[in-house]
Amino acid sequence: MAADSLFSKHRIILASASPRRRELLQQIAVKVEIIPSKFEENLPKSSFSTPADYAIATATGKASEIYKEHQEAVVIGADTVVVVDNKILEKPSDVACAKSMLSELSGRVHHVVTGVCICYKDTKHTFHVQTEVQFSELSPDLIDWYVGTGEPLDKAGGYGIQGKGAILVERLAGCYFNVVGLPLQKLHSQLLKILSE
Amino acid sequence: MAADSLFSKHRIILASASPRRRELLQQIAVKVEIIPSKFEENLPKSSFSTPADYAIATATGKASEIYKEHQEAVVIGADTVVVVDNKILEKPSDVACAKSMLSELSGRVHHVVTGVCICYKDTKHTFHVQTEVQFSELSPDLIDWYVGTGEPLDKAGGYGIQGKGAILVERLAGCYFNVVGLPLQKLHSQLLKILSE
Repeated sequence: MAADSLFSKHRIILASASPRRRELLQQIAVKVEIIPSKFEENLPKSSFSTPADYAIATATGKASEIYKEHQEAVVIGADTVVVVDNKILEKPSDVACAKSMLSELSGRVHHVVTGVCICYKDTKHTFHVQTEVQFSELSPDLIDWYVGTGEPLDKAGGYGIQGKGAILVERLAGCYFNVVGLPLQKLHSQLLKILSE
Repeated sequence: MAADSLFSKHRIILASASPRRRELLQQIAVKVEIIPSKFEENLPKSSFSTPADYAIATATGKASEIYKEHQEAVVIGADTVVVVDNKILEKPSDVACAKSMLSELSGRVHHVVTGVCICYKDTKHTFHVQTEVQFSELSPDLIDWYVGTGEPLDKAGGYGIQGKGAILVERLAGCYFNVVGLPLQKLHSQLLKILSE
């Protein structure tokens, strides 16, 4: 069955308040309802052996919370983290912190990991996708300018590739949309598989 | 000097009618005027030794045509081609052709090359950026659905990664925005360099 008609037979809920995730799903014409989860993104990182495990656990927390109240639906939860030297970078707390994060990422490779959980028919389907991102060498002028745009403050790792942050990224390897917040190709194929079973 | 104030001192013209290229430059806050070139994209491909040479020649043709009339400005021309087996894929002429192109790209790697020419102070600065794109295995159902969206017909290679075509792409290596139509990071850094000289 074609994806469109298969998806339209289900109530699909995105358990996320992120406008970027909603836009990504709109881009590929998957109609979802938004019911943001209140699950806190504060699991103890040190108790997970990898950043992917942490992201999947947070995604599962978000999806499960909403699924409990909407068990007839398909519920998608996701969490995206930026990883450098096996350390997870959060959203910068202020301008100084944003500058320091961008200096840390300058001229080198980091990883962006999105954990996804799809709750459907009492089963949790989880996976993660990792994208390698190479930053260009950032001059102090460029960092000052970018921080001045205000873009870094609400973004994990202090940048948004889908905005002005595009000029910071020299190359990436993997899924671009995963860096924005959802691995579109993998998510679409997993939804197709799960709903076809 | 910061990029913003440097760029705002110049009249920058994009010699392209592509709404995607305009949106990409808006995304990174580079203010441009649009004056589409009438240069035909029909140079004899066999007379170029690589697809990159062909794309640069077309980009140069577009930029030069507009620069002749606006020599006080900075003029940007660009051309993006999709390359598989060293063959350049054009925009598909009809639905059958789009299906055949997508079948050809299914499950394998191709390259997207954007040639860029920046005309400024009687000098042509040219470069190209190549991105490797890995398509997922596309089922006949998925190809039918995608062609039915109407998206392929005005796009080189028969897909738009920035639209529903996102679900066709498993991974890429290089610059994502280059696949959309302009290599933002390289273009921004080259403009900065050229205008600072």
